[in-house]
Amino acid sequence: MTLTAELRDILGHDRVLSEPLERWVYGMDSGVVRGDAQLVAFPETTAEVAAIVRCARHYRTPIVARGAGTGLAGGAIPTQPGLVVVLTKMNFVEIDEANATAWVGPGVINLDLSKQTETHGFHFAPDPSSQSACTIGGNIANNSGGPHCLAEGSTVGHVLALEMVTADGDVVMLGGPAPDPIGLDLRGVVVGSEGTLGIITKALVRLTPNPPDVRTLLTGFASVEDAAATVSGIIARGVVPAALEMMDQRMTQAVERFVSAGFPTDAAAVLLAEVVGLSAAVEAEAAIISEVARENNATTLRVAADESERARLWLGRKSAFGAVAQAAPDYYLHDTVVPRTKLVETMTRVYEIADRHGITMLNVFHAGDGNLHPLMAFDSEEEGMLDRVKAAARELVEVCVQVGGALSGEHGIGIEKRDLMKLVFTEADLDAQARIREAFDPAQAFNPDKILPAGSRCFDLGRPPLEGMWV
Amino acid sequence: MTLTAELRDILGHDRVLSEPLERWVYGMDSGVVRGDAQLVAFPETTAEVAAIVRCARHYRTPIVARGAGTGLAGGAIPTQPGLVVVLTKMNFVEIDEANATAWVGPGVINLDLSKQTETHGFHFAPDPSSQSACTIGGNIANNSGGPHCLAEGSTVGHVLALEMVTADGDVVMLGGPAPDPIGLDLRGVVVGSEGTLGIITKALVRLTPNPPDVRTLLTGFASVEDAAATVSGIIARGVVPAALEMMDQRMTQAVERFVSAGFPTDAAAVLLAEVVGLSAAVEAEAAIISEVARENNATTLRVAADESERARLWLGRKSAFGAVAQAAPDYYLHDTVVPRTKLVETMTRVYEIADRHGITMLNVFHAGDGNLHPLMAFDSEEEGMLDRVKAAARELVEVCVQVGGALSGEHGIGIEKRDLMKLVFTEADLDAQARIREAFDPAQAFNPDKILPAGSRCFDLGRPPLEGMWV
Repeated sequence: MTLTAELRDILGHDRVLSEPLERWVYGMDSGVVRGDAQLVAFPETTAEVAAIVRCARHYRTPIVARGAGTGLAGGAIPTQPGLVVVLTKMNFVEIDEANATAWVGPGVINLDLSKQTETHGFHFAPDPSSQSACTIGGNIANNSGGPHCLAEGSTVGHVLALEMVTADGDVVMLGGPAPDPIGLDLRGVVVGSEGTLGIITKALVRLTPNPPDVRTLLTGFASVEDAAATVSGIIARGVVPAALEMMDQRMTQAVERFVSAGFPTDAAAVLLAEVVGLSAAVEAEAAIISEVARENNATTLRVAADESERARLWLGRKSAFGAVAQAAPDYYLHDTVVPRTKLVETMTRVYEIADRHGITMLNVFHAGDGNLHPLMAFDSEEEGMLDRVKAAARELVEVCVQVGGALSGEHGIGIEKRDLMKLVFTEADLDAQARIREAFDPAQAFNPDKILPAGSRCFDLGRPPLEGMWV
Repeated sequence: MTLTAELRDILGHDRVLSEPLERWVYGMDSGVVRGDAQLVAFPETTAEVAAIVRCARHYRTPIVARGAGTGLAGGAIPTQPGLVVVLTKMNFVEIDEANATAWVGPGVINLDLSKQTETHGFHFAPDPSSQSACTIGGNIANNSGGPHCLAEGSTVGHVLALEMVTADGDVVMLGGPAPDPIGLDLRGVVVGSEGTLGIITKALVRLTPNPPDVRTLLTGFASVEDAAATVSGIIARGVVPAALEMMDQRMTQAVERFVSAGFPTDAAAVLLAEVVGLSAAVEAEAAIISEVARENNATTLRVAADESERARLWLGRKSAFGAVAQAAPDYYLHDTVVPRTKLVETMTRVYEIADRHGITMLNVFHAGDGNLHPLMAFDSEEEGMLDRVKAAARELVEVCVQVGGALSGEHGIGIEKRDLMKLVFTEADLDAQARIREAFDPAQAFNPDKILPAGSRCFDLGRPPLEGMWV
């Protein structure tokens, strides 16, 4: 028997892909790294996932689990020839209205979950820009954030329990329905572990009540400084908006060309603020935001008049990456957090780095918590460009760490940021993380080469990370 | 050399206690279980903690770390003759106002942290009833909650980074300043691990801005049903109060005798609701709460007129356990979560169990998230009483699990609830948790016999849990 034949025994012929053309797309995500998916399986049940894992282990074949592949850091890329397990067919949703929770399959699309729970008065709070395509399993693997995570927190705060298939093919339950589950709580370490500890087959997620009212404000400023001062001013006045997003001029111009969201293209920076709650509360909060914006010389100040205008503003924000893709064939998105007080300084230095390397840099980010997403747009066919992009990316991370910031994991570490871990963690820190991996997956069967740099722990087999995978 | 002599070399004579009378108090917490602290050490720095751990390991002496000992589940009790490390002298606070965070020592008292950050406009959100005595280290060990965790979540959501001394005596940093730290995030599994994975020597905690305005409402009802309907009604109207606490009649009467908080002693149930935010918002929310309470036949409805009345109401709520201690020599507090829709049914059955066993039962709890704290008050000198209390406690947990509830970890598992873990987790689930412990502390040097029941994993040394420790 071969692994392919055995998997076809388990799943049937059609749910196992082995032809190069069929499986090619499963060797990539939405970033710049490429891998080789030798074999692709589409399980529909937990039992099938467990059987696949036992089978692949028998053939000593590495396993990479994935959802929609919207990740940017290569987290779902097979770095060694192996098996890719695609979980998109596991997309059941069972809503428990009384407890405001739902059991969901890892393949449920983020936005679909909110649509399915809408008639019950709920939504799923984490809302990454890719929410119309990305899956809950991917959100869990990367502990995804989104504009509305300023007030609501990232995915980890919205997962109560996880069913996981271990490297032994066992099925375990982590966490439970209580807000504060008993025992050693493994949810937090599994959320964000990018498929390196096991394969999530089911999740109990917390649903967030849809707010009774909402106000969305668009403000424009003649300088980034004014916009940043507005962000700090709003928070200092005791308002924590549900979302507080900033876009620089290059980004608003790209978005306007792409979707005509109504952003002022002459503003140096645009802020999108949203407040939710009771009508009296959102009116009071919107008034404070307007007042702070005027004090900081806002050149545009508009409250969305109705749901359609609000939807158009958010479409603009969430189309930012699509807009850039129209403008340049490749883009490289960074993900870092700096203290809010260092936002302006960091952006100045980030532009300087990009200009020096001759790269187009655009910025769109979660201003409320200082989560910067500088985006480099380029053409990888241009000679020397990739080296310049890599050099600029490295400098950018160093600047952010210098101003007291941190690498953020909102987009995952994957293969892309793996070696940057050493900028942030000591050997002992990395060893502690590697112990967890060793405890769950000593053979590194699940998503090898990801997150932890080689040599994090003595058990490390020293397989080289895939060379030359950069595009 | 002996361990005592070596520890005195490290810490000096006065910071090591070995006389039976001196160390007696460190063999107990605030619950009903007692242990034997053979030796007690008071480190002041991370380096001292690391030296103590290496030294104790050399002598193969088990180590139990503790703070103020306000726990109720025996989590800080040495179950085997060993070393108790008291962290109360590590009580530094370094506030970072710009980032709304603070580095704190594990020995900082919860309420002191809020007092020290008050002039900067912040507080530490988790507010257990024991907050005037319990330490941040203990809050982290137990992932403590409190009345204000309904809106703000329990301790785990307020800890950004942890410095921890491992069983090898190494110092590691878990998490980081970013809201969503990179790498495998070990914070979540260490928070709530009750000192079984390492000793926390420093924590970076998130500070919560003090709200611009607050309204505290006291409502009384002629039936528990009306109070429970009010809780559901408030949440259904889109209001998530900062706190929403319920007390039954026996509890309000005990509290009134103790502190005269102004609770109506003729009400079957009292609700204490607090809303925070901008003035317009809290007024609107207070109006909705009042309306819902009136619709559900409130017999008392009062908004605290000023800060002193508000403080008195909260003093009443937080004195509940002290009040009971005045009324009976011993008490036993349970900690469970049931769906809000099952609150009334559960309370009816809980009273029935207590009556049948002839035990006084009082209830005070976090109604907003269904976190019940049934409290049994009794005299352990009374013949057969302890057996009745244990039998009633077991029935109580079974009832909560039957109605779809769960054991909560808000008060920790310790030694008390250890064997109840098997009600909730399968063998594979417990094995997954035990792997983590094995990865960090294979010799079970730290707080042996806690959280995980014997036999959770093959490496388990099969030491019997301390027999006869019940009182």
